[in-house]
Amino acid sequence: MRFTSQTSSDGVTEQLFTLGGIPGVLWTPEDATGPRPLILMGHGGGQHKKAPGIPARAGRFVTEGGFAVTAIDAPSHGDRPKDEEFVRIATENRARMGAGEDTAALVAALHELLADQAVAEWQAVITAVQELGYVGACPVGYWGLSMGCGLGLPLVAAEPRVRAAVLGLLGVHGLAGTAARVTVPVQFLLQWDDDRVPRAQGLALFDALASAEKTLHANPGKHGEIPGFETDSSLRFFTRHLG
Amino acid sequence: MRFTSQTSSDGVTEQLFTLGGIPGVLWTPEDATGPRPLILMGHGGGQHKKAPGIPARAGRFVTEGGFAVTAIDAPSHGDRPKDEEFVRIATENRARMGAGEDTAALVAALHELLADQAVAEWQAVITAVQELGYVGACPVGYWGLSMGCGLGLPLVAAEPRVRAAVLGLLGVHGLAGTAARVTVPVQFLLQWDDDRVPRAQGLALFDALASAEKTLHANPGKHGEIPGFETDSSLRFFTRHLG
Repeated sequence: MRFTSQTSSDGVTEQLFTLGGIPGVLWTPEDATGPRPLILMGHGGGQHKKAPGIPARAGRFVTEGGFAVTAIDAPSHGDRPKDEEFVRIATENRARMGAGEDTAALVAALHELLADQAVAEWQAVITAVQELGYVGACPVGYWGLSMGCGLGLPLVAAEPRVRAAVLGLLGVHGLAGTAARVTVPVQFLLQWDDDRVPRAQGLALFDALASAEKTLHANPGKHGEIPGFETDSSLRFFTRHLG
Repeated sequence: MRFTSQTSSDGVTEQLFTLGGIPGVLWTPEDATGPRPLILMGHGGGQHKKAPGIPARAGRFVTEGGFAVTAIDAPSHGDRPKDEEFVRIATENRARMGAGEDTAALVAALHELLADQAVAEWQAVITAVQELGYVGACPVGYWGLSMGCGLGLPLVAAEPRVRAAVLGLLGVHGLAGTAARVTVPVQFLLQWDDDRVPRAQGLALFDALASAEKTLHANPGKHGEIPGFETDSSLRFFTRHLG
């Protein structure tokens, strides 16, 4: 793990890093010492580790919860080279979305193409970040919506260090089996008027989660229009389960 | 409004009162002075103003939010005389429930029988309680599930002093029109495995609310098994909208 830059403001230290070709960012409290829970933040499709919303949310998790937060560019995203097959599916997906057609199968194919690599990368990032004295081996949380959910679900299902997850904005297509292997507490966000994920598909993914504790938070609005108060709610959820 | 008893413990003063034949209870911070938002707490069917859960929840709203909280016995409930027609429908409802039959129409009839009186009584209680110097004319919140939702929805739709409501555990039967007149922020609780309210009926009631801000919180479990962390969530919701 190689840190390439460090800046601090408003009580938060932001460090850019690379780990075996994966570009990432780590946010911790300024002058942090000693162990603290780590939250992984998975970005949406076509976005990147510092897409709008991610640094702001990370800042609140750091300053109000005392957490460490890390985000990485998913395979074929951000500063990383794009896989040919990924470009082909993503292009077809955008065309279908533009034509108002059902994209559930293509979205599932896109996530499946990236998932194995994404899971292995998150696992390597957890190991590397937890070696830092100001992070340490505390419980880990995962936060990711839309593609961040599609790549996060298999991670949460496979990785025992992850103890709680905020997921959502995705339908059940191709994921029922994975969801049935998720047993940690989940807060699941659904947009009631989602223009990309049919309501019934989102409800079915929540239903498929095997977690004894899972909460569905549904709010009016389209795919990206999650209300700001859900950030407070995510923070309290992680504090309850990782704190 | 006549107060008949007063006790204080753990920072909360509890006063029993009667108002024109309505038995009620008012919880306020010990030694409270000056105005504060008021939360009305509606109990479930067959229950009463101090049914399990209500005083504990009121205590947290008082000590952690600084709110005043009041609960009254609904018509034909608690210490009040029971209407003959109410007894007839309630008896039939219990029998049907015991036989595992659909009770949506009977539940709606039961609530409709009580609703006009219940709304008028809550309005009188708001007026009387807000005349107390340590409550005053601040925004009002309503909290009520199951029958507390069935009697609360028409109140919230009709009464402009109510600015936010926690509702739920009820289906849309007979309530679509009322829900379409509710425009204040609503937090709606739904039990994913509700043994009394079919899931689709509960989702449809949430869907029918006209509120621009409404949040569905769905959790696993049966009708009465709402997880404790939803009390925290209600408290934060009222603090956000009444504070």
